[in-house]
Amino acid sequence: MSPTSKSQLNRAEDNAAGGVTAISPVPLHTQIREVLRRQILDGTYPPHSQMPSESQMMNSFGVSRITIRQALGDLQKEGLIFKVMGKGSFVAKPKAFQSLSRLQGFGEAMSPSGYETYSLLLSAREVEASAVVAQRFSIKPGAQVFEIQRLRYLNREPISVDVSYFPVEIGRRLVQEDLAARDIFVILENDFGLNLTHADLQLEAICADESLARHLDIAEGAPLLRMERMTYAGETPVDFEFLYYRGDAFQYRLRIDRT
Amino acid sequence: MSPTSKSQLNRAEDNAAGGVTAISPVPLHTQIREVLRRQILDGTYPPHSQMPSESQMMNSFGVSRITIRQALGDLQKEGLIFKVMGKGSFVAKPKAFQSLSRLQGFGEAMSPSGYETYSLLLSAREVEASAVVAQRFSIKPGAQVFEIQRLRYLNREPISVDVSYFPVEIGRRLVQEDLAARDIFVILENDFGLNLTHADLQLEAICADESLARHLDIAEGAPLLRMERMTYAGETPVDFEFLYYRGDAFQYRLRIDRT
Repeated sequence: MSPTSKSQLNRAEDNAAGGVTAISPVPLHTQIREVLRRQILDGTYPPHSQMPSESQMMNSFGVSRITIRQALGDLQKEGLIFKVMGKGSFVAKPKAFQSLSRLQGFGEAMSPSGYETYSLLLSAREVEASAVVAQRFSIKPGAQVFEIQRLRYLNREPISVDVSYFPVEIGRRLVQEDLAARDIFVILENDFGLNLTHADLQLEAICADESLARHLDIAEGAPLLRMERMTYAGETPVDFEFLYYRGDAFQYRLRIDRT
Repeated sequence: MSPTSKSQLNRAEDNAAGGVTAISPVPLHTQIREVLRRQILDGTYPPHSQMPSESQMMNSFGVSRITIRQALGDLQKEGLIFKVMGKGSFVAKPKAFQSLSRLQGFGEAMSPSGYETYSLLLSAREVEASAVVAQRFSIKPGAQVFEIQRLRYLNREPISVDVSYFPVEIGRRLVQEDLAARDIFVILENDFGLNLTHADLQLEAICADESLARHLDIAEGAPLLRMERMTYAGETPVDFEFLYYRGDAFQYRLRIDRT
């Protein structure tokens, strides 16, 4: 699969490449970016496939390394490709997305879009509350809480690790339910009669540590979208979670108003 | 600055460390994590300082490498520390946060919390719309749009790169305004009389490429929180942006309802 030949490019003024005759006003790296984008979107380079090396592209496009890097950098910023240290650039899959417009469990949110979801129970046990967990539940650090760790699958691929904390009595009841197939929110409402009202979220980007990387089948250090979520039934905190989503596979969407 | 001595730990059953006598029911790695957390929060290890090496901690705590890694992994997952490949672990700064409850510019959102914001104009020019930009404005790929790139500062440190696209006539007027000190939303409303109504957002985590890393003064490959945002005045798309926030310095917060 050789990249597009030189003839497809209109030579343009391009500071990076230097000394190239200006025919098209569009910079060379922009032309190359759009050629590569088309080849990704039309399936010439399918998801997970490796892009040609920088040297191969320098040869086939007849441009400098810095021009190729600029084109690849643009595609990386858009999330169309990702780099693996020491290996090169790879094509990303189209990202699955979940709406943040209302509070929903992952299964509830994704199933209507035709996705298949599943949870693997990693662990379920009573633990002493860490400082953060204790603070969120307004209990003393070291007091007992129930921790449930799940690996969530979307269309049979791992997509997130969910680490959830509950008051002990709720956790003990939860582990008797079918956590592989059902969202915890749905169990809390339908089976336990809790009236979930709202949640406070924090969203940020972090690096995968060794254990998250292993579970999610990604490289250590790969970017993760991390959500911290406290879900309430009225004034009562019932479910405090850390959700770690694969950055290369997932996004949140949301419409917000100016006023 | 030597880490806490062995005497502060209650020896616990700990599969990872292996063969340790159980006195406390709290696993060793959890105890170590909480000791380190306290030392970070009380300033023993201030923001940006390097944590002791794994070997140093193995010696001072008297535990195995895997136990230390588990404790550090937990703190990394929480965002309290971050790893730099080949260098070790460093203490993260408390993250600044912006509310996502309503559509606001960065300056508008942060100034009331006592933050000082500032924008460095990186570039402002007419460009041909890429496939993504064209699709969002419902124009033909290659049609002219105005691109403004800014590096945004929070308390005099770079926090995000904002790449914004506008219809050409709006962009030409914008560059005549004080983009260093004023939010573009505010200029669009107060000076241009546009009635901004809402925005559609996409949020994900990506790796910093070379140019974003250079601008934001972070390592290439470091995690970024990426937002794609299309802002509308009624039905009219006016401002399409890619915002790249430093993962180690910024988070979004949001309250959402169950119904």
